[in-house]
Amino acid sequence: MTHKIILDTDPGIDDAMAILFAEAHQDIELMALTTVFGNATIENGTRNALFLKEKFNCSYDVAQGASQPLERPPVGPTVIVHGETGFGHLHASEPQTAKADPRPAHQYIIDQLKAHPGEITLVAVGPLTNLALALQADPAITKLVKQVVIMGGAFGEHGHRGNVTPFAEANIHDDPHAADLVFTADWPVVIVGLDVTEESFFSSEYLDQLRDDAGEVGQFIHDVSRYYLEFYSEKIGLSGCHVHDPSAIAYVINPELFTLRQGPVRVVLDGCAEGMTLQKFTDRRHGYDEWEGKPKQSVAVDVDDASLLKLYRDTIIEYSARQ
Amino acid sequence: MTHKIILDTDPGIDDAMAILFAEAHQDIELMALTTVFGNATIENGTRNALFLKEKFNCSYDVAQGASQPLERPPVGPTVIVHGETGFGHLHASEPQTAKADPRPAHQYIIDQLKAHPGEITLVAVGPLTNLALALQADPAITKLVKQVVIMGGAFGEHGHRGNVTPFAEANIHDDPHAADLVFTADWPVVIVGLDVTEESFFSSEYLDQLRDDAGEVGQFIHDVSRYYLEFYSEKIGLSGCHVHDPSAIAYVINPELFTLRQGPVRVVLDGCAEGMTLQKFTDRRHGYDEWEGKPKQSVAVDVDDASLLKLYRDTIIEYSARQ
Repeated sequence: MTHKIILDTDPGIDDAMAILFAEAHQDIELMALTTVFGNATIENGTRNALFLKEKFNCSYDVAQGASQPLERPPVGPTVIVHGETGFGHLHASEPQTAKADPRPAHQYIIDQLKAHPGEITLVAVGPLTNLALALQADPAITKLVKQVVIMGGAFGEHGHRGNVTPFAEANIHDDPHAADLVFTADWPVVIVGLDVTEESFFSSEYLDQLRDDAGEVGQFIHDVSRYYLEFYSEKIGLSGCHVHDPSAIAYVINPELFTLRQGPVRVVLDGCAEGMTLQKFTDRRHGYDEWEGKPKQSVAVDVDDASLLKLYRDTIIEYSARQ
Repeated sequence: MTHKIILDTDPGIDDAMAILFAEAHQDIELMALTTVFGNATIENGTRNALFLKEKFNCSYDVAQGASQPLERPPVGPTVIVHGETGFGHLHASEPQTAKADPRPAHQYIIDQLKAHPGEITLVAVGPLTNLALALQADPAITKLVKQVVIMGGAFGEHGHRGNVTPFAEANIHDDPHAADLVFTADWPVVIVGLDVTEESFFSSEYLDQLRDDAGEVGQFIHDVSRYYLEFYSEKIGLSGCHVHDPSAIAYVINPELFTLRQGPVRVVLDGCAEGMTLQKFTDRRHGYDEWEGKPKQSVAVDVDDASLLKLYRDTIIEYSARQ
C-alpha cells in the first residue's frame, strides 16, 4: 500500500534522516516537503530541502512556510544541535535548478488536500505552525486528510519528559499555540514524542555501518550527523543519537512498531512548563476540565526499537542499491 | 519529641479531621489555626475553627487570613465537596467566647516564628496564600521555620494527577502563584500531595468504627464526613474518602510512613494546566530550565497507608479516652 505524504519539516539533521527514509521507502510517495522555521531559519531550511532534492534526484515539491511562531516570541534556530545552517558541518550549496513552489506551505497543503481528498497523510516533524495556519485558513481540511502524524511532545512515559526544557520537547516548545490548535482539531492525530523517540538510538557504530553499506546516501547520513553526534557526546554524554524525526516516518510505514494510547491532548502555552504536552487518558470527572469534549488523539507510548532500527537500515540500503 | 505546629487550614471536612488529629496527638503542640479561603469562605472557615476550639476545649489560637488568592480570579468555596458552610450537613454555631486573634494570619505566623526561632513547623492544608503573604512581608522567616509541610499538589505518581482538574489538585489550583512562591522559597518544604493522599482511604466502615470506638470526637468525625462521603459516592463511585489533610499531620508525627523524592518544584500559573505541580528530580541539562537554581524540596511519592490508618485511629481513640 502506498502512502501519499506531505512532510512538514525544519531541516535539520534528523529531518534529513527522515526525508531520505521517506524518499527511500517504496510504500511512501513523498509528494512534498513543506518547510518551517525551527532547527534552522526558514531560508536555511528551504535551501536544505532543495539541496537534498537535487543531490538525490527526488521528485518532491518544496513549499516554504512560516518563519516564526503564531504568538510566542521566536526561540531562534537550534544552532547548538543542528549547526549554523541546519545541516551540521555541511552547508548546502544554492540549488542549481530546483525551485520552491510559489505558494506558502499552508496554502500548498490546503490545495493538495483538496486535490486528493482522504488520500494524504500529513507528517510534521518541526514546529506545527504551517499546519495551524492551514487549519485557520480552511478548517474544512480536517475532513480531507487521511491522518496527521506528528513528531513532537513528551508525555513522561519511560521517564521522557522534555529535551529543550525539563518538561517540553523542542518542536512543541517552538510554537505551543500552533500545537494546541493541531491537537484539538477534529482530525486523527498520532503523536510520536520523546516517549518513543528517546527509546530508539542510532549508535555511532550503527551510523558507521550505514556509511559502509549504503553508498552515497549512507555516506551523507553519516556526514550530516557528525555535528549532531558531537552535541550528544558533549551535552548528553551519549555516543550516537536518538531517533526523533525518522520515527514519524517509521510509524507511517509500519504502525505496528508502536503502542498507542487514546485521549485528548492539550499544550501548556506559557510559563515554566511552556510547550508541555498533556494527554487525559482516564474517565475521571473533574470540576474544571479543558480536555473535555476535545477529540481523542493517539499518543505513542511504546516502540519496538530493534525492529525500527532494522527497518531504517534495510530501507536505506535497498534505496542505495536502486540509486 | 514535641512538635510545635501552626496549622494553616481552610476548614473544610478533611481539615476538621486533620485539626482533631493534631489536637489529639501527644507529640504535637497545636499552637494555632490560621485560616484561609478555599473549601469554605474565610468567614465560614474561621467560624468552623473557633467552633472546634470551643467544642473540644482546645487551647489553640485562631488567626484569620486571606479571603482570596494573590492574583488569579477566586474559584469560590468547594460547596459540592464540603457543603454550604464547609462542614457538610453540620453548620457551626457562632462561638460563645472564643475569638480570633486581631492580627491577620500572615502577621501572626511571622510573629510566632520570630518568637520561637527554629522551633515551629508550618503545616498548610489549604491554598498557600497566607504563607506567601508572610514570605512577601518578611522574607527572613525562611530562616526561622523548622520545616514547612504542605498538603497539596499532584505529581502523577501511582497515576494521581489531579482532582479539581485532570492535572491539578484543589489547594494549588486555588492559588498557583502563592504555591510557586512557597515551593521556590529557600526553606525546607515537604509536599504531601495526591500521590500519597489518594493512596490512603478512610472506608465507610473505618469511619463507622471510629464513631463506635472514639466517643464524642469519633461521633463528630463521623457526622462531619457524611456530606463528604455522599460526594465520593455520587461523583467518584467510592464508599469512603481519601485521606488528604490528615496525611500532612501524619507526616509530622511519623515521617517514616512516607518515601520522599528531592528536587525543585514549580507550579503552572495559568492555562489548561493551571495549578499543576512539577518537580524536576533528574540531573539532565536543558537549554531552558526554570527549575535550575531553585531549592530542592521533598515530594512524598509513597506511603505506608495501613500504618497511617492505624496511627489515625489509635490517636483519636486515645484522645477520646482522655477527654
